[in-house]
This record gives sequence, structure tokens and C-alpha cells, in this order.
Amino acid sequence: MQLAHKRMASSTHPSAPCAACKFLRRKCIQGCVFSPYFPPEDPLKFTNVHKIFGASNVSKLLNEIAPHRREDAVNSLAYEAEARLKDPVYGCVGAISVLQRQVLRLQKELDATNADLIRFSSNQNMLTIPQSPGNYPQNPHALPPNYGNYSWNCNP
Amino acid sequence: MQLAHKRMASSTHPSAPCAACKFLRRKCIQGCVFSPYFPPEDPLKFTNVHKIFGASNVSKLLNEIAPHRREDAVNSLAYEAEARLKDPVYGCVGAISVLQRQVLRLQKELDATNADLIRFSSNQNMLTIPQSPGNYPQNPHALPPNYGNYSWNCNP
Repeated sequence: MQLAHKRMASSTHPSAPCAACKFLRRKCIQGCVFSPYFPPEDPLKFTNVHKIFGASNVSKLLNEIAPHRREDAVNSLAYEAEARLKDPVYGCVGAISVLQRQVLRLQKELDATNADLIRFSSNQNMLTIPQSPGNYPQNPHALPPNYGNYSWNCNP
Repeated sequence: MQLAHKRMASSTHPSAPCAACKFLRRKCIQGCVFSPYFPPEDPLKFTNVHKIFGASNVSKLLNEIAPHRREDAVNSLAYEAEARLKDPVYGCVGAISVLQRQVLRLQKELDATNADLIRFSSNQNMLTIPQSPGNYPQNPHALPPNYGNYSWNCNP
């Protein structure tokens, strides 16, 4: 509620209906679940989220989340919606594929470079290898979870 | 159409309505836009996608995509939906944050290891450094695009 108040106050039109209520042509009542996160000066944010998720689903989702986490939730929904509008086939899953490939490539490069360092050290009969903080692979990758068994051939 | 036919035929109940039509309690007609991608034996796939995106939005999206790309689209939607149900605040954007941090950490480690190799080489007055394929940073990161200006504090 405090967050809502702060957001409403920060709007350049504090008395204007929020972007969601304006789009849905309804009265923006006090305590409107959308108003803190969909200011009237950014109508596209709501339009995108509505196009992809639907206002009703977003409203349901927000009501199930603690108020202090709703802003992050709306922003991640807005990110997903924009990604899906720009890439209707893969949405932001395309970004996940790019990043996963990048992690694998970097890990391979790092392994090869570490192997070179060890080879150097052996060739010189040296027992120590110069150390830099965070120089060696520290832990297995925390790759994102594989939800379901859904696959796609994404080569953006 | 061919893909649809193949998928329908691969179902264990080729004459049963697809999971979408069963859930929506409607007749699964020939050419149903959902049936190739929502087989009756995997009802959860449709339930999840419907909960997050809504059947109507998914249907609209599929109709705007070429048939040969629809399977990838449905699977990426199913991935996003499952991620959002498991993490209502960040959804699969949480995975993007994890991967972005991982890429930055690996790049830092790789830079430090390459610096060590160069230091070794200088100390030994050697002009050549043992090379492994793909040993050095090859190109700047193709980080995923920053959609909008939406931010969140995601530390899963």
C-alpha cells in the first residue's frame, strides 16, 4: 500500500487513471492492483503485458504475490511480453538459449586455458602456478532448470 | 498441415480430443490449431500455458506464426509458463539473470587466466604461448537484448 502510494505520487499525473484502467476503459479506484506498476505515462508497458498474458491473468498473478514483490513481477512480465512480441516463436527463451551456449563456450575456453597453464608449469618443472583471484573454475554451473521436456531448435 | 497430421497420428489416442479442447470442453475439429501441440496424454502442458497466457492469446499467437514454427513456439510458451508457475515473481527471467551472472563470472575468470599465461610467457622470455583451439576470448558477448527499461532485483 505504501509502495502503491509512493508510485502514484511519483507519477507526473497523480490523479490520472493508470495505464491499465485507461486501456480497459474503467475507473481507476483507490487500491487498483495495476496502478502502482502501470503509470499513465508508459501505456506500452500495459499494452504489451495485456497482449501476451491478458489483464485478468496478470491481475490474478499480482494478487497472489506479496505487495513488495509485485514490482519485480510486473517488470519481469513486461520483459517477457516485449521479448515475445519481438520474437513470437522463442520469446525470451531465445535469450536463454544464447546465454546457455555462451556459458558452454566460455567454460570450454577456460578449461583449455587452464590446461595450457598446467602444461607450462609441467614443462618448466615448476611446482607453482601464478594465481589470480577467481582464476580457476570454482563450481559446476548453476544452469537454469529444465522445465518439462519441451525442446526447440533455437538458433537466433 | 503435414506436421499436424504426423503429430495427431503419433498420439496414443488419435481420435481423442486434444488436451486443449478437452480442457475447454469443446469439440476438437479437424484443423484445430492446438491439437498438433497439445496431445491428450499431456494435459498439464495445456493447463500451464492456459493459466499463464490464456487459450485465446495462444491461439492468436499460433495463427500468426508459420505452421512449421508452431511447435517451437508452443514449447517455448510451455517452458515460460512452467517457469512462471514455479517462480511467480521472476518466471524464466530468473534463469536469464543466473546465466548473465555466470557469463560475467566466467569471462572474468578467463581474462585472469589469460593474463597469467601472458605473465608466464614474459617471465620466461618466451615469445610463444602454447595454443589450444578456442583458447582466447574470441568475440564480445552476444548478451540478450535489454527489452524496455524494466529492472528487478533477482537473486535466486
